[in-house]
Amino acid sequence: MNQSWTRHHILSLANFSEVEYDTVLQTASSFREVLSHGTKKVPPLQGQVVANLFFEPSTRTRSSFELSAKRLSADILNFTPGSSSLSKGETILDTAKTYLAMGADIMVIRHKQAGVPAAIAREMDRLQTGVSILNAGDGQHEHPSQALLDLFTICSFLDSDRPRLEVLKGKKIAIVGDILHSRVARSNIWSLSAAGVDLHLAGPPTLLPEYFADMGNVTLHWHLEPALQDADFVMTLRLQKERMTSNLLPSLREYHQRYGITRDRLKICHPDVGILHPGPVNRGVELSSDLMDDPRLSLISQQVTSGVAIRMALLYLLGTRK
Amino acid sequence: MNQSWTRHHILSLANFSEVEYDTVLQTASSFREVLSHGTKKVPPLQGQVVANLFFEPSTRTRSSFELSAKRLSADILNFTPGSSSLSKGETILDTAKTYLAMGADIMVIRHKQAGVPAAIAREMDRLQTGVSILNAGDGQHEHPSQALLDLFTICSFLDSDRPRLEVLKGKKIAIVGDILHSRVARSNIWSLSAAGVDLHLAGPPTLLPEYFADMGNVTLHWHLEPALQDADFVMTLRLQKERMTSNLLPSLREYHQRYGITRDRLKICHPDVGILHPGPVNRGVELSSDLMDDPRLSLISQQVTSGVAIRMALLYLLGTRK
Amino acid sequence: MNQSWTRHHILSLANFSEVEYDTVLQTASSFREVLSHGTKKVPPLQGQVVANLFFEPSTRTRSSFELSAKRLSADILNFTPGSSSLSKGETILDTAKTYLAMGADIMVIRHKQAGVPAAIAREMDRLQTGVSILNAGDGQHEHPSQALLDLFTICSFLDSDRPRLEVLKGKKIAIVGDILHSRVARSNIWSLSAAGVDLHLAGPPTLLPEYFADMGNVTLHWHLEPALQDADFVMTLRLQKERMTSNLLPSLREYHQRYGITRDRLKICHPDVGILHPGPVNRGVELSSDLMDDPRLSLISQQVTSGVAIRMALLYLLGTRK
Repeated sequence: MNQSWTRHHILSLANFSEVEYDTVLQTASSFREVLSHGTKKVPPLQGQVVANLFFEPSTRTRSSFELSAKRLSADILNFTPGSSSLSKGETILDTAKTYLAMGADIMVIRHKQAGVPAAIAREMDRLQTGVSILNAGDGQHEHPSQALLDLFTICSFLDSDRPRLEVLKGKKIAIVGDILHSRVARSNIWSLSAAGVDLHLAGPPTLLPEYFADMGNVTLHWHLEPALQDADFVMTLRLQKERMTSNLLPSLREYHQRYGITRDRLKICHPDVGILHPGPVNRGVELSSDLMDDPRLSLISQQVTSGVAIRMALLYLLGTRK
Repeated sequence: MNQSWTRHHILSLANFSEVEYDTVLQTASSFREVLSHGTKKVPPLQGQVVANLFFEPSTRTRSSFELSAKRLSADILNFTPGSSSLSKGETILDTAKTYLAMGADIMVIRHKQAGVPAAIAREMDRLQTGVSILNAGDGQHEHPSQALLDLFTICSFLDSDRPRLEVLKGKKIAIVGDILHSRVARSNIWSLSAAGVDLHLAGPPTLLPEYFADMGNVTLHWHLEPALQDADFVMTLRLQKERMTSNLLPSLREYHQRYGITRDRLKICHPDVGILHPGPVNRGVELSSDLMDDPRLSLISQQVTSGVAIRMALLYLLGTRK
Repeated sequence: MNQSWTRHHILSLANFSEVEYDTVLQTASSFREVLSHGTKKVPPLQGQVVANLFFEPSTRTRSSFELSAKRLSADILNFTPGSSSLSKGETILDTAKTYLAMGADIMVIRHKQAGVPAAIAREMDRLQTGVSILNAGDGQHEHPSQALLDLFTICSFLDSDRPRLEVLKGKKIAIVGDILHSRVARSNIWSLSAAGVDLHLAGPPTLLPEYFADMGNVTLHWHLEPALQDADFVMTLRLQKERMTSNLLPSLREYHQRYGITRDRLKICHPDVGILHPGPVNRGVELSSDLMDDPRLSLISQQVTSGVAIRMALLYLLGTRK
């Protein structure tokens, strides 16, 4: 299954091919199938070392990668910046090279600065190490595994047996919220554009600058309604409360009134609309609390479950490639 | 062995049955037996995921659960509140649901607020998830695994081959110290009452209100001597130093003079008296330092060892039930 | 292979015998051999519990021990002082005894105070526990596993097939920097003296007091050049920036000008000179940045790789002894 996979690092979805998307979706689907039959562990990465270098802390994403790696029988090393030698003046590249020298096979990297995973990948290639880098979120740049788990969630919603890119062709999807600062939105725009989705972005002008129209075949809206009209899926984004203080936003309440997703607002969507959110949700801000808990509308817990299958797929494809 | 076990969550000992106590004791005894013969790992929870959600940090209890889970071949996910999305505004229930969606089979939960594990258990049941919740300490409410390891320690002291509830019938046990704020004391009162113990509580009036007499067949003492007279076991409780500042206590020295356990004070106990403490001990406060280190009197290290066997038993009973 | 090993704890290299050094080197060499053939895990410590008690935090050393233990199939318990009961007043010995009672077989201990690992070892022996203590750095006293990985790195550099003490006989090695505060330097002085190395220490007078001459057959230099002249290896030490504030040092720039290792300065060394540093490096202070990245001169990444093999060897020798 892995013979066609040639990509060494997963840093961005900007240049992912349709074949790559479908390979990831199909591999994740196989792992989900295996897990659903009670087999909780598979051996392909036995003895391989996955180093989680989370320079920016994150419990849920780290746990998801950790569990995925364990289910593939890999060994995990967690780097925790709090108690780290970074405070002693070590550079990020030197930290990565330390884990390389210890024997890491795959490094999963999160950093608050865009481009750090790519810089480490370049260095690993320059040194001809064979180590694979997986971007687990870099600044406001990209978060490929999140966009791939979103993709897996919605493709599975439409065809659970054979989730694949083409089932999304012509579907209308709205991404709502703080597009400007969202690495999740950026990665989603790449994957959903590649799938031929009719993609609509909605948010306040301060958080949705016009230049996003250049990213591809997307339509921008500063009002919510035209984005939601007949939408098949609504992807909400986490609102960083810090944005308030920098005057990019009015109050949380006003944000919710203008851009918050509620049961009422969804009436103009497709009747089977599904709501996504990368989590953690600010209940009553990005979406109303009752909506989040409605299993007929909310795909949020499916996203988390998809996360393990997708991350198993990515680690597997990187770890068995060669 | 597990056919009789029907309890889905372990939240409180308030309504534990005699059969349940004996099943736990017997299961723990089997695991202790296995471990003592050099077999360090057993396979029953292979591939199951135990999520340690310690919203209130605790190294010793978390390590004990972690080792217990590893010895049952489970995979462990540690949630660490410091680097968590809780600071990002996620609710506790949403955190639990995230670990549910990742695939957790058992959640071990500690929280500084009473009732949190029960609330999560209700939500897991409402969602028909099959996930088991194990209360690892909630506020001043309960700490069932600690009381069960205390029970296992003293029953094993009396009959190491067949630790069971009935060996405690009619024994005199004193619980000494800050009863008011102790979740350990509350859980112990339930289990020791169920065993038919002659139970005596002793402490300063500010830390031992009269309403504790309502919890069952217990005798309250504001002086230490009558509680210790002929006692078979003395359970000391950890004194939170914060209590001083809230004027509930005089100085530590005065506390030790009035309620601290010393070799001298034990002379009026049963000659084979055993001393317990849930740890960590403030040496020279709850009990004198030399007493703590006397293997003839102190059962403290047996308690820690019992902790691994008891937690293996609890995880096993929850994880293999169905 | 392990029949000759009798040492119970590894606390200091002060009284290591030649046979012990060679056993460690040979065992590490075997593990490196095994790892290089794709076998990533070996079973000798299956079910044994290695407790990492890092009272002083350290990501790289802890990760190295953790990976070494995993590759020997041991279970690991990590004690993290931040969220610990130490803040609740527990003594260090009580913490160690708690992990003992849980079932730890080997304790790897780092503490900012010299002598803590030895104190714990004495207590473990007094209690006849059979537990082994491995000093992972105590104050300014010793850091034996670091010195042994340095030894393994340079012996392997000289004879990669059979790294052994005698290949170092008569070689000239310079240790440069803050000797006074370095536990790494102290352990290195013991091992390199035992190997019959022509050992030279260089550093500013404030960081290299004359009494170091008493440690054995070493030559002290307050200027760099005579130490580097014809040196086969140059071991640089990490400079703690805190030293500036205590007036032990001029500026970092002046330090680099006088004692920093640069390509230019190495011209007077042996043509095949190798540079070591225990990491993390302050680039441009202890050594120039380009030197650190030159694989022909820098042995720094070999040191990290050696660390895993050496720590596997030490854990193996302690864990299979008896």
